[in-house]
Amino acid sequence: MSILAVGTVAFDRIETPFGKRDRALGGSAMYITMAARFFTPHPRIVAVVGADFPEEYMSVLESSGIDLSGLEVDGKGKTFAWGGKYHYDLNQRDTLYTDLNVLASFSPVLPDSFVNSRVVCLGNLHPAVQLRVLDQVESPGFVLCDTMNYWIESTPDALREVLARVDCLAINDSEARELSGEPNLVRAARLIRDMGPNIVIVKKGEHGALMFTEEEVFAVPAYPLEDIQDPTGAGDAFMGGFAGYLDAANSFGSDDLKNALVFGSAVASCCVESFGPERLLALAMTDIENRINAFRTLTTIPASQIQVRYSALH
Amino acid sequence: MSILAVGTVAFDRIETPFGKRDRALGGSAMYITMAARFFTPHPRIVAVVGADFPEEYMSVLESSGIDLSGLEVDGKGKTFAWGGKYHYDLNQRDTLYTDLNVLASFSPVLPDSFVNSRVVCLGNLHPAVQLRVLDQVESPGFVLCDTMNYWIESTPDALREVLARVDCLAINDSEARELSGEPNLVRAARLIRDMGPNIVIVKKGEHGALMFTEEEVFAVPAYPLEDIQDPTGAGDAFMGGFAGYLDAANSFGSDDLKNALVFGSAVASCCVESFGPERLLALAMTDIENRINAFRTLTTIPASQIQVRYSALH
Repeated sequence: MSILAVGTVAFDRIETPFGKRDRALGGSAMYITMAARFFTPHPRIVAVVGADFPEEYMSVLESSGIDLSGLEVDGKGKTFAWGGKYHYDLNQRDTLYTDLNVLASFSPVLPDSFVNSRVVCLGNLHPAVQLRVLDQVESPGFVLCDTMNYWIESTPDALREVLARVDCLAINDSEARELSGEPNLVRAARLIRDMGPNIVIVKKGEHGALMFTEEEVFAVPAYPLEDIQDPTGAGDAFMGGFAGYLDAANSFGSDDLKNALVFGSAVASCCVESFGPERLLALAMTDIENRINAFRTLTTIPASQIQVRYSALH
Repeated sequence: MSILAVGTVAFDRIETPFGKRDRALGGSAMYITMAARFFTPHPRIVAVVGADFPEEYMSVLESSGIDLSGLEVDGKGKTFAWGGKYHYDLNQRDTLYTDLNVLASFSPVLPDSFVNSRVVCLGNLHPAVQLRVLDQVESPGFVLCDTMNYWIESTPDALREVLARVDCLAINDSEARELSGEPNLVRAARLIRDMGPNIVIVKKGEHGALMFTEEEVFAVPAYPLEDIQDPTGAGDAFMGGFAGYLDAANSFGSDDLKNALVFGSAVASCCVESFGPERLLALAMTDIENRINAFRTLTTIPASQIQVRYSALH
């Protein structure tokens, strides 16, 4: 069992109506591995940081059980930095800045110990970098991919090349509509499945997620939370939980995928309860178990009184 | 077992990207009873129409098994008429016109045969009219209420009086936020529950619904449909299916409420597949059963591989 995540490790500036953080530990690869580690040991991270990346953050990653063999330190540059400000309802955010820094020239080389990775997470990055990583994994068992509107618009050909080689694409509803050119999500998912991925997960933020496979559709709500502090990283934490479950289950059937969707949603719902990765760092396994059980309570339809159906005239 | 619905019976003009209809049979009380009749016999309608209401529509209602003893024909006026135009994504609509006509002076008097009604649906109407109906029902077992932003803004006191006397309020997410003054839906539902209704159902359109009770939250997704022709009446059909189930089950416990939410969602998801009440009129009981089963498939979380949870270091 082994999971690899390529993506960013970042300094995040986060502003929400409930507070702010500067130079918080962030990045898609960080959130993916930080979530996956609850279900599978030593998730492998492939990313780059600059000379300014503090020893303290390195220790946080290491003590969280993340395998850092693939974390490159580029001594000539600064760590990727992102700033975002969320609106009152937390559903919209403005990007304050995106400083690529060392990410601009990132060309990952996998350590030998990573080439046998089984579950591969291609975090939101330039599709060419995603492809470069995929090319180096010997025989991936399951490949997950995230992307964003920027790549859909600016690198459509490279993105198509990635999509042709992944098992599962997990994207936002607006991105699914943009990628497919189709407003109806059922049809959008079918069009995206025609591009390659057998499984399409449409993430709808506070409205949960839909998973489309060849045979069926599966829906999971977002957990109704009273206090959401910071949505940053929720989508990546979802992907990490999803991938981590699949890797641990070591099988990719319909029931595994459904459970993975619930486990991913559970971790993501915990993630947003504090700023940055703070909650993920503090979570105990029982917290996640409780949240998973809460998802079951939230969605389980009890047996119906069958006779009801025949009480009408029809 | 008996269900009563007060609301409108209307001529609807409907324009969607997929077609249009003029003078279609419409109105909240029509949709509620037309949906409820699948689960409980002879739903009772309390509404008013004008002298222009055609015999043909009267026959449609009658042959659908709806009890018309409470349908007043006001010979001095015209039937309430509404026109709406939906945008491309079907989530937004513009009201083209609202001609109250006979509805402006509607002051319902219940026929004697209606005063023993058990489940009472107060469809979207002036709260004073909702109260007037409620006053005439001898000992309602369960009272459901719908409302809209117009009444929240223009008749807040009368609305509060209604809310203090109902068991369940079913409203849109934006209306829940407006009524409570709270953007977070979990907190909004608690504030609304403090106004009276023990159960609050927040309808989220294409994102399904959340039901809040004292003890728990239950989520049901909207059924992912490839072809939605016309969303008109979906909320009312939901209420009718919900109330019809409860009336047939003749009990209002947690499991009954959850099933009612699913049955209501199933009927609503059928309703939007054609214009106006066309699909509701054509539905067979098996269509609804199939849709209810589809909801179970859509949301049932399979048993997870428990050992997964302990495979990590934690």
